[in-house]
Amino acid sequence: MLKKIHHVGVVVPNLEQGLKFWRDSLGLRFTKSATIEEQGVRAALLRVGESEIELLEPINPDGGVGKFLARRGGGLHHVCFETDNVELELDAARAKQVPLIDQKPRVGLAGMICFLHPKATRGVLVEYAQPMDE
Amino acid sequence: MLKKIHHVGVVVPNLEQGLKFWRDSLGLRFTKSATIEEQGVRAALLRVGESEIELLEPINPDGGVGKFLARRGGGLHHVCFETDNVELELDAARAKQVPLIDQKPRVGLAGMICFLHPKATRGVLVEYAQPMDE
Repeated sequence: MLKKIHHVGVVVPNLEQGLKFWRDSLGLRFTKSATIEEQGVRAALLRVGESEIELLEPINPDGGVGKFLARRGGGLHHVCFETDNVELELDAARAKQVPLIDQKPRVGLAGMICFLHPKATRGVLVEYAQPMDE
Repeated sequence: MLKKIHHVGVVVPNLEQGLKFWRDSLGLRFTKSATIEEQGVRAALLRVGESEIELLEPINPDGGVGKFLARRGGGLHHVCFETDNVELELDAARAKQVPLIDQKPRVGLAGMICFLHPKATRGVLVEYAQPMDE
């Protein structure tokens, strides 16, 4: 079962400029930032209610986020739903013939995660996340 | 103050096909649908946690959603934050020189709403909503 929107991913050319808008102009609460080398991004998280806005700045132009920035100039990138069991959700999606990017859960910024393929949804990239204890 | 993600707007070519994915494959709970003539859309709402996914099918190719569908083929369209006072939030955004689409709150599907201009955010369309009693 999908419990809530865990976060909405937003691609920005520059994290500091992104924070100027999302934190300083909109007033969302900054919680943390991190560099995720294997995904080719620097990320910053901002809390709003039970969800977060995840700002993503590419550090590698050849990664998925880098290509998205080059193609679109930034913008809404993906929506991530929280679940208690990402493996069960992935199995359920597979059983319903939903095309997948990840065949198995893997470790991501939000815990154990997986991505469904955007061709399932006319271009919406959907992520599932099962948070791990910090 | 922005309290939570009220909804994430997703443009789809066809509402029934959209529901097949978001309701039937992902398991989100359908709550209601409506036609909003003045915005040129049919909309369906699906609940997840304290938020909703708002599917939008254009009924008018010349409206904003119709043009988005023609340009992008559908996908993530906007993110809406809930507030107790949309007029105060709009004033605060204006005071911070955030470019606006709506100079004053107006009635929308989610209550009293307004849209900030996506040029503020490198292409992310942000909505504020103050729900009204049903």
